[in-house]
Amino acid sequence: MPLPQPDLPEPAHPNIDSMLSRKFGKEVANYFSGSPLNRVSFLRPDHAFLSAALKHPSATFLLFRNLEPLIKNPDGSALAYATYSEVQPIIGEDPFATSEEDLIKEFNSQKYIPQIIFLGLDERKEGIVYKEHYKGQPYFALDVTPKASVTEAAEKLIKDLEGRGLSFSKGRMNLSLQAQEAAIYAEARHLLDWNARNPYCAQCGYPTMSVNAGFKRTCPPKDLARELKKKNPERPPCATRTGISNLSFPRTDPTVIMAVVSADGQKMLLGRNKRFPPYWYSTLAGFLEPAESVEEAVRREVWEESGVHLGRVVIHSTQPWPYPANLMIGAIGQAIPGGEDVHLDHDAELEDAKWFTLDEIREALRVGTSGLGEGPGPEYKEGGLRLPPKTAIANQLISAVANGFVTGNPSL
Amino acid sequence: MPLPQPDLPEPAHPNIDSMLSRKFGKEVANYFSGSPLNRVSFLRPDHAFLSAALKHPSATFLLFRNLEPLIKNPDGSALAYATYSEVQPIIGEDPFATSEEDLIKEFNSQKYIPQIIFLGLDERKEGIVYKEHYKGQPYFALDVTPKASVTEAAEKLIKDLEGRGLSFSKGRMNLSLQAQEAAIYAEARHLLDWNARNPYCAQCGYPTMSVNAGFKRTCPPKDLARELKKKNPERPPCATRTGISNLSFPRTDPTVIMAVVSADGQKMLLGRNKRFPPYWYSTLAGFLEPAESVEEAVRREVWEESGVHLGRVVIHSTQPWPYPANLMIGAIGQAIPGGEDVHLDHDAELEDAKWFTLDEIREALRVGTSGLGEGPGPEYKEGGLRLPPKTAIANQLISAVANGFVTGNPSL
Ligand SMILES: [Zn+2]
Ligand SMILES: [Zn+2]
Repeated sequence: MPLPQPDLPEPAHPNIDSMLSRKFGKEVANYFSGSPLNRVSFLRPDHAFLSAALKHPSATFLLFRNLEPLIKNPDGSALAYATYSEVQPIIGEDPFATSEEDLIKEFNSQKYIPQIIFLGLDERKEGIVYKEHYKGQPYFALDVTPKASVTEAAEKLIKDLEGRGLSFSKGRMNLSLQAQEAAIYAEARHLLDWNARNPYCAQCGYPTMSVNAGFKRTCPPKDLARELKKKNPERPPCATRTGISNLSFPRTDPTVIMAVVSADGQKMLLGRNKRFPPYWYSTLAGFLEPAESVEEAVRREVWEESGVHLGRVVIHSTQPWPYPANLMIGAIGQAIPGGEDVHLDHDAELEDAKWFTLDEIREALRVGTSGLGEGPGPEYKEGGLRLPPKTAIANQLISAVANGFVTGNPSL
Repeated sequence: MPLPQPDLPEPAHPNIDSMLSRKFGKEVANYFSGSPLNRVSFLRPDHAFLSAALKHPSATFLLFRNLEPLIKNPDGSALAYATYSEVQPIIGEDPFATSEEDLIKEFNSQKYIPQIIFLGLDERKEGIVYKEHYKGQPYFALDVTPKASVTEAAEKLIKDLEGRGLSFSKGRMNLSLQAQEAAIYAEARHLLDWNARNPYCAQCGYPTMSVNAGFKRTCPPKDLARELKKKNPERPPCATRTGISNLSFPRTDPTVIMAVVSADGQKMLLGRNKRFPPYWYSTLAGFLEPAESVEEAVRREVWEESGVHLGRVVIHSTQPWPYPANLMIGAIGQAIPGGEDVHLDHDAELEDAKWFTLDEIREALRVGTSGLGEGPGPEYKEGGLRLPPKTAIANQLISAVANGFVTGNPSL
């Protein structure tokens, strides 16, 4: 069964015939981008806003249990949402009733607070109106994993939801969500995961707390839990409290992923690792390292993994990837003449890397694409090249080259 | 005095007349990119290699005290380096004599180990030859801050170096290094800073240790320092020990920085904050958030900071920025018709943002560029627009627009 292909998101303002779009072509919007929400990020420290948004009748809550979202269908093709009254037994009357400043003063590392994230306002829908400019349906994400003081309330809610035919996704979402829902899910998952991975301060080792509606963690100077044991709630000084520390903010890891074209423009280099099904190849990829430009990271990764030397590299498009926290930067690079020999032994990550003709690739795009766990299309013939699905930026990069990105006229 | 303008790095293989460079133009290589070193990242866990590289007569050490590099000239225009015999009293005979696996078993959080980073091989120079393919002069960075058990040896070395007229830079390097040295410095600073900010595991709160020659931190299962106090060196389980955790790897924060062009292509939007000198403006910029594409982050930041609505966004070039750990992703975006009104009150970060004609901007590029702390050129007239220097990606983006990126023929 081929994977259901979600529509890729339309870029914002696709109908604007601007000079940039005439010159560089239509923007490629990859899966997990294209969120309909306005994040109004500057309102996150504003508890008056968050309180009003939370209790507004239009407020909607995307629920997660152990990082897995509540879904309507067992195939994961639509998210399910809850209301304020449903989550109220878990979050309490109003977790934003007290100012952020006062909550930091009251920090008690022994007290369990279920993680809540303010995702943004859907401006297309009726909802809250705040300070004239900020309007729409408020979206929150909430961790309802049965745990500590919320165990009972969370178990009850989950039982009710399951009674209505809803369930929590099993394993990684299989890219079958409609594009705008996928983007909302990606934002929620990335932030829940980041909060869950950072309960302690990497600078001083003491417990941290979530602030800014889930978009920041702070290292409080006092901890009331210490008072009981040590008579003194004060903690040692921490460098994250003086000046700005990136440890306080969500982490996103830039990765590079690249379609590699031969010097004559007629072949493309693809690789495979052992986990891939037979005949399945994809673009090379890897993490950008400290103090590299994207172009340098692309050249380094391609040489390390395949031995091929690249000259010019052009950035094509980008894709958020919430497993757990990546920004995939898609590029197209061209080998230098004489730099096309494949050598797999520098970094033994790949099982194989080889050059394919553009004709082989066009045929594979037509009949051989699928998700990793799925079978290819009905026209696929055993032994033919298989490639990733349209929801993967790898497919978008390969398609761009197959459609003339390097040799033909249309640009980005 | 205008800031000395370093040469911007040449892109790799600038003379290759590839299809991509004919189509998209020459690659823009920004300051802090363009490193001459091959990082041979896959050799970092190989202590036999690291030992041989460290003791090779060609090995060279870039020294830092409190994240400030050793320099030859007080204006910071050249780095100074030390030899193995000079640093040996600080690092010991060979910090790579034992395998990484055994060092993890011997982990003792009370033992101070000065941070050492393997930066790469300069393949243009005579040096080590390892496993046939890997050749060149080995570069290391070393923290020689007088501290704990190395206080005395470090103080002696620093005194010797100062006696030879060398000194440690004061404050942030002022972008006056020659481009390839700047890239080496950026790699070293980014990694030393990351290691210094992460002595504890954010997942479990226990001390971590540096491995992979400074490119990874691990959360060891035992700590010999505990044995003395608690009779048992075993630590509680930590999720970073099972599966891959991004907490173990260096962090790089993607940021977006963008030249904003009006719908008719004839004006550019620039902003200023309170810290800027009079008449000084620059491009808008901000952090990419979780689950955003670069294009979405550009549109969000521009709207939040200036109220302007963008349509098409094109990525131009990227710049590593080691203060402390950024990847600047430079883009050019175009306002939609009717979306050009400036509104500064969404996020009160900017003191001002306004539209400038391309003529005003071309004149400012000619006479009004400088570093933040420096004066403009001799032809500058008081009251005229001032802009960032060529070493800043902001200048490269503004120049690209002034030179016809949107309206004219040349592409990237
Ligand atoms: Zn702390
Ligand atoms: Zn740990």
